[in-house]
Amino acid sequence: MSNASISTIYSRRESQARSYCRAFPVSFVRAQNATLHDSNGRDYTDFLAGCSSLNYGHNDPDMKAALIAHIAADGITHGLDMHTDAKAAFLEAFERLILTPRGMDHKFMFTGPTGTNAVEAAMKLARKTTGRDTIIAFTNGFHGMTLGALAATGNAGKRAGAGTALAGVVRMPYEGAMPGVDSLAMIRAMLENPSSGIDAPAAFLIEPVQGEGGLNAASAEFLKGLQALAKEHGALVIMDDIQAGIGRTGPFFSFEGMGLMPDLIPLAKSLSGMGLPMAGLLIRPDLDIWKPAEHNGTFRGNNHAFITARVALEKFWANPAFQRETEEKAAYLHDRLSAMAAHIPGATLKGRGMMQGLDVGCGDKAAAICAESFKRGLIIETSGAHDEVVKVLAPLTIPQAQFASGLDTLEAAILAQTHQSIAAE
Amino acid sequence: MSNASISTIYSRRESQARSYCRAFPVSFVRAQNATLHDSNGRDYTDFLAGCSSLNYGHNDPDMKAALIAHIAADGITHGLDMHTDAKAAFLEAFERLILTPRGMDHKFMFTGPTGTNAVEAAMKLARKTTGRDTIIAFTNGFHGMTLGALAATGNAGKRAGAGTALAGVVRMPYEGAMPGVDSLAMIRAMLENPSSGIDAPAAFLIEPVQGEGGLNAASAEFLKGLQALAKEHGALVIMDDIQAGIGRTGPFFSFEGMGLMPDLIPLAKSLSGMGLPMAGLLIRPDLDIWKPAEHNGTFRGNNHAFITARVALEKFWANPAFQRETEEKAAYLHDRLSAMAAHIPGATLKGRGMMQGLDVGCGDKAAAICAESFKRGLIIETSGAHDEVVKVLAPLTIPQAQFASGLDTLEAAILAQTHQSIAAE
Amino acid sequence: MSNASISTIYSRRESQARSYCRAFPVSFVRAQNATLHDSNGRDYTDFLAGCSSLNYGHNDPDMKAALIAHIAADGITHGLDMHTDAKAAFLEAFERLILTPRGMDHKFMFTGPTGTNAVEAAMKLARKTTGRDTIIAFTNGFHGMTLGALAATGNAGKRAGAGTALAGVVRMPYEGAMPGVDSLAMIRAMLENPSSGIDAPAAFLIEPVQGEGGLNAASAEFLKGLQALAKEHGALVIMDDIQAGIGRTGPFFSFEGMGLMPDLIPLAKSLSGMGLPMAGLLIRPDLDIWKPAEHNGTFRGNNHAFITARVALEKFWANPAFQRETEEKAAYLHDRLSAMAAHIPGATLKGRGMMQGLDVGCGDKAAAICAESFKRGLIIETSGAHDEVVKVLAPLTIPQAQFASGLDTLEAAILAQTHQSIAAE
Amino acid sequence: MSNASISTIYSRRESQARSYCRAFPVSFVRAQNATLHDSNGRDYTDFLAGCSSLNYGHNDPDMKAALIAHIAADGITHGLDMHTDAKAAFLEAFERLILTPRGMDHKFMFTGPTGTNAVEAAMKLARKTTGRDTIIAFTNGFHGMTLGALAATGNAGKRAGAGTALAGVVRMPYEGAMPGVDSLAMIRAMLENPSSGIDAPAAFLIEPVQGEGGLNAASAEFLKGLQALAKEHGALVIMDDIQAGIGRTGPFFSFEGMGLMPDLIPLAKSLSGMGLPMAGLLIRPDLDIWKPAEHNGTFRGNNHAFITARVALEKFWANPAFQRETEEKAAYLHDRLSAMAAHIPGATLKGRGMMQGLDVGCGDKAAAICAESFKRGLIIETSGAHDEVVKVLAPLTIPQAQFASGLDTLEAAILAQTHQSIAAE
Repeated sequence: MSNASISTIYSRRESQARSYCRAFPVSFVRAQNATLHDSNGRDYTDFLAGCSSLNYGHNDPDMKAALIAHIAADGITHGLDMHTDAKAAFLEAFERLILTPRGMDHKFMFTGPTGTNAVEAAMKLARKTTGRDTIIAFTNGFHGMTLGALAATGNAGKRAGAGTALAGVVRMPYEGAMPGVDSLAMIRAMLENPSSGIDAPAAFLIEPVQGEGGLNAASAEFLKGLQALAKEHGALVIMDDIQAGIGRTGPFFSFEGMGLMPDLIPLAKSLSGMGLPMAGLLIRPDLDIWKPAEHNGTFRGNNHAFITARVALEKFWANPAFQRETEEKAAYLHDRLSAMAAHIPGATLKGRGMMQGLDVGCGDKAAAICAESFKRGLIIETSGAHDEVVKVLAPLTIPQAQFASGLDTLEAAILAQTHQSIAAE
Repeated sequence: MSNASISTIYSRRESQARSYCRAFPVSFVRAQNATLHDSNGRDYTDFLAGCSSLNYGHNDPDMKAALIAHIAADGITHGLDMHTDAKAAFLEAFERLILTPRGMDHKFMFTGPTGTNAVEAAMKLARKTTGRDTIIAFTNGFHGMTLGALAATGNAGKRAGAGTALAGVVRMPYEGAMPGVDSLAMIRAMLENPSSGIDAPAAFLIEPVQGEGGLNAASAEFLKGLQALAKEHGALVIMDDIQAGIGRTGPFFSFEGMGLMPDLIPLAKSLSGMGLPMAGLLIRPDLDIWKPAEHNGTFRGNNHAFITARVALEKFWANPAFQRETEEKAAYLHDRLSAMAAHIPGATLKGRGMMQGLDVGCGDKAAAICAESFKRGLIIETSGAHDEVVKVLAPLTIPQAQFASGLDTLEAAILAQTHQSIAAE
Repeated sequence: MSNASISTIYSRRESQARSYCRAFPVSFVRAQNATLHDSNGRDYTDFLAGCSSLNYGHNDPDMKAALIAHIAADGITHGLDMHTDAKAAFLEAFERLILTPRGMDHKFMFTGPTGTNAVEAAMKLARKTTGRDTIIAFTNGFHGMTLGALAATGNAGKRAGAGTALAGVVRMPYEGAMPGVDSLAMIRAMLENPSSGIDAPAAFLIEPVQGEGGLNAASAEFLKGLQALAKEHGALVIMDDIQAGIGRTGPFFSFEGMGLMPDLIPLAKSLSGMGLPMAGLLIRPDLDIWKPAEHNGTFRGNNHAFITARVALEKFWANPAFQRETEEKAAYLHDRLSAMAAHIPGATLKGRGMMQGLDVGCGDKAAAICAESFKRGLIIETSGAHDEVVKVLAPLTIPQAQFASGLDTLEAAILAQTHQSIAAE
Repeated sequence: MSNASISTIYSRRESQARSYCRAFPVSFVRAQNATLHDSNGRDYTDFLAGCSSLNYGHNDPDMKAALIAHIAADGITHGLDMHTDAKAAFLEAFERLILTPRGMDHKFMFTGPTGTNAVEAAMKLARKTTGRDTIIAFTNGFHGMTLGALAATGNAGKRAGAGTALAGVVRMPYEGAMPGVDSLAMIRAMLENPSSGIDAPAAFLIEPVQGEGGLNAASAEFLKGLQALAKEHGALVIMDDIQAGIGRTGPFFSFEGMGLMPDLIPLAKSLSGMGLPMAGLLIRPDLDIWKPAEHNGTFRGNNHAFITARVALEKFWANPAFQRETEEKAAYLHDRLSAMAAHIPGATLKGRGMMQGLDVGCGDKAAAICAESFKRGLIIETSGAHDEVVKVLAPLTIPQAQFASGLDTLEAAILAQTHQSIAAE
């Protein structure tokens, strides 16, 4: 398919809401692990990874094989929330490989297969179980596009899409968001002041690392303080691990090793392993007061995703090797980005694990770097309130050589872009 | 897998929100067209069809083949909203086979792959383009579980799940919902009275046939009247064809042949053809004022679904045979249900096309009929405000013999249940 | 003061929100009973009576005398909600002359001295005691301008003033508002249908006669049916008697003799007797769950109003004569308006008691009649969704001769206006 | 009236919402300037002054005389918003003595005669003129009890009265409210971060001194910074001067001399001079986009209040003597409170002008001091989030000797209470 034909059909019939395709105006036809191929036969290294939906890369061969076998055998595709062998096998693997080893007695709720749906389910349950309305969310938080989750999302452009009031959410500064402000101390003071006007919250809704918000990573101290504060005030903690979870920062949950036990944990993105739509909500068992079908959804039984999700768990989480490799790559990434930061005046490192990036100070510069990278065969995107962070979200499974090469490309793009700016001055 | 093992894992780890599995306590392992197989080797005829997500039956061989080929070739699985050959091919087929022949110049918006997401996108857009807040929805309407769509959903049990105010929606009686009330005349009077307290609406949100609400089918006259009223008052019509569309009533859209041209049409359920998560919103082109990414979603580029959706369009909608067969089956269904109605005092027929059912007067009776059917190998469910309607949602592709046999089973269950009740009195 | 000076100061410094002064562009300086005097020495008969705030006419001599004595003796003017002899005397008189004879055990809550404040207090209490959010209000209802009460007010112009969402109120047709619709039956059907989308209400909020909404008078049957329905569904009845109460329709409460016992009754307007700001909420005692100061207001202890309110009770409600006289005047008014209706094609009588009027079919005609009346020395205004009702709200104490003469003026204005229209055609 | 009879009628018939009367369980019968007399012939010095509604004391002789003359002459009592000589004279005096000398071109809107109504009108107008929804209010703010204003009020007890969601208001820390937080810098950072989740505000709603919130006084620097920030972001400043205005801090407006020119200024409490219900909203003229009657209210034309309000302006604001005397008293008050603070470990001075008090660290201690004062003939109350501030709100007109004596009583009560506590330990 030529680029000409691309533009015709999309401009003719696809809504203006489309976005990534504008930055990468080619048509992709195949992909394996960290490599994408376009219709003109060109290859790209993928440092976007479906916004962290492809932590195990594109089309993992074991997941492919299992999925093809399932389809070929007429395995259940769409199962509503009926029992199927694929679902049971996923649940058993999730219990055995994830929950039990981490001492978690949470229930798994199959929500509609999108992150926003899992977040909405969590917000509902927090409100139902506490009888309170207010959810405290954080600056630069991103939680979804449906009305409930959108109220908790910070981005002004997204919020403007609502066309109606976004209610029930109070905003507090994320750790470090406001220079000089100790967020936790301020939240505590607000909650302890009966005239603060901040009503007793049903829950705190927070991302351990803010993916869209600019790769801001909360400290263990902050998150533990928040958990303690929640407990004191009868509120829950909803830990939105949709983007940072499923190994992105190293361990399965991004908050592991911090002494935390969140009440509600929405998961999505890489949960299915292969990028298939799947989401879930982990629920502290005593909070699981749902009545049957009180929250449901047509596609909550996407059995293809259960197949690949189970394979992913068995392949990557049965022993500690995968987490260790991710941590090694993360350390390498940190070193490389540190070196690149030195090329850009004022640039700073953001994030942790395999979700790190460079805050280059402004959105135009970040966009130019990404555009330059794309010209050189690297797919990479920005994040942050001003799109000022160049964000590396490579598959965790990327071969080391390709990873290094992709970072070389990024560095070259940065240098090219920097020289260009200097020349332009 | 034995039933014992089923109960263990689900009761141990799945949320109480699960529902259908309670009515059908077996584990399904395979399915073809209208037949499901459980882990004990028993077969079932499927009159539920994924709540109309499986209009073309389970695991259509052509869709399977295309999907397996795509996967085997490392075709794109997760594509965000980037251009892919699978997406372009779907869009082109949708234009060629659906939009152009029907004179529709709508744009296609890939929302997150759930019906509720498509509805929320429609509500947002209606509010944004009109600058108004109020959406008028109807009694017994069902539009989704996320906060915006839930506000438009009538079911009290679902609404109670929100735990917070459901705002921005005004409720009017669906055609025929209130005996003696001419709904359209009343809505008109409300809108023409500047002191009615009903603010000028952004849109009417309506299902041509209410699937969950009890198989209530609006007349062409009512829907045309509503469309005219909307135009007069500067409001849009959002025609939620998620359950009734994609051939369920015969034509691709359930409102075809009524002289209607809705402004916004959310689609989901059977859109992907094979039951894979996919949703879309058709948008009258001048209303497509989205900014890039103003509404987005991680799984809006589920390319597996694009593959099967394209095959479905090409296989079933390239010529009128499929629609004609559906209409013939619908006529047969009507005859059979009419005969069954005679067995139940006060029972009435509901719905149209291949979404018809029997209002048996109360939920207990309907539940007993469904339970009896399940014992006899038929999967069928209820709908309606009191779950009082036994609802036949067979795959449109069900072989005539199996359809007849399934209806025989239903009739036998009705007779058995009726005799049992009589015996019990 | 000349008309020139009037226009200067008001146009220079008063907000555009002013309204009645535009229809009556003179400056009033004195008033007794039903007569107003302007600065040019002209007299007017008052058929507006402060929108029913002056049921006992302007400056009743006994109230005046008591108030002057109170002021001269340095009686408490502003008392917050502290005990004062004036407050105790009012409360005792209200108990003795109003509550006890009617078998009412209600508590009296001194809200801020405006009707909207009393309505807001009622809405709060209904929500608090039931734990429900929804208030069902009616088409053409008018309950106040602050955000809570405004949500219950039907008038689009007033609602547009809010600039934000008006939430928590569901609208139903007032008795007879929608031709062919049995409102009570429809409300019942809505509440009995668990999928209607109408959440279980905290309360019904209704005016027995809609003053601003066009003098629509609900029947005893309707109001009793509503009360019964409320009881069945665990909802309260808030009977807003602000405009129709305090004798306006004959008895002290406009709903007397209908077999009703409302849970919450907001009162204001003529409560103070002399037009001084005062409002109150009558509360069924078991609903009086307020914590001290949970709802308060700086001017809830307007002791001047307590003085005149007590005098009004003692003077007019100690024996049945006053009510009887009002009923006689109302009958006379009915006869006169019936005769006038005959002059205007299509005109109909509206209202009951001393709040009756003529629906002349359109706002322009009604405005012309009022303007013509004003030229002839009669102050009278319109009401209704289209301002189509010429509304007679004379003081109940108006001398019969002046009442007759005022109605002569109105009739003459109607005839003049009618001839003028005919001539113009 | 004996105390026995007091308790009978109130407990029998008055709502539990009553509050001040619980702290001062006597019945007041007369009052002059700063002295109240009860039914047992006992005198009290008034350090509460109707919560700042009686800045000119009780029953000022000149206001009394003018009001009696007006009533005796049958002057208009209730005038809706029609022109009357009393209204014109008030407006002219307000223009001549208040607006013109201060270079203010504001319009005066006669809202319903309560502070909450003036605040609601301001909130509406801010939303209407900006097309935005969010009002930013502050911790410990108090703005009224009706739904719109209540959303902006911080007090949890008051908020709980609503029984429904309080929407449309975002809360920020008042200057100095959160130790270590530079509120202005934080608000700026929030508004400049497009992903903060704080939508562009319609207005800031702030009290220059927080009366109910604990006598927190904002600095000129803070308020000017806020005004500048508002201008930058297209937001208005609503300066709620209901409690701090009308001379309470010295000048007519509490924010005079700070280089401020608020867009909207709600006034109430002492506006009428004598404690009669009256409120108003000052509106920057280009913002006065109200349509006639878009916001109205039955008692917005309380002509008795116009009479006394005009006398108050002419008597106290025609020359600078009154302001100077207030400032001298404020300085004396400051000295006396400073001395008293020394008796109480950890006590601090709060407020400015004639609204100063002592933060004694906890509500119980403050309540004990007030109770002890009352025993000794002094009426005084607490404020603050924990009722921890003993608040001196004497009439500005209190004779110096009585002021000194009242403060002696307070000091004695503090000492008695302190010794008692020590003895109890």
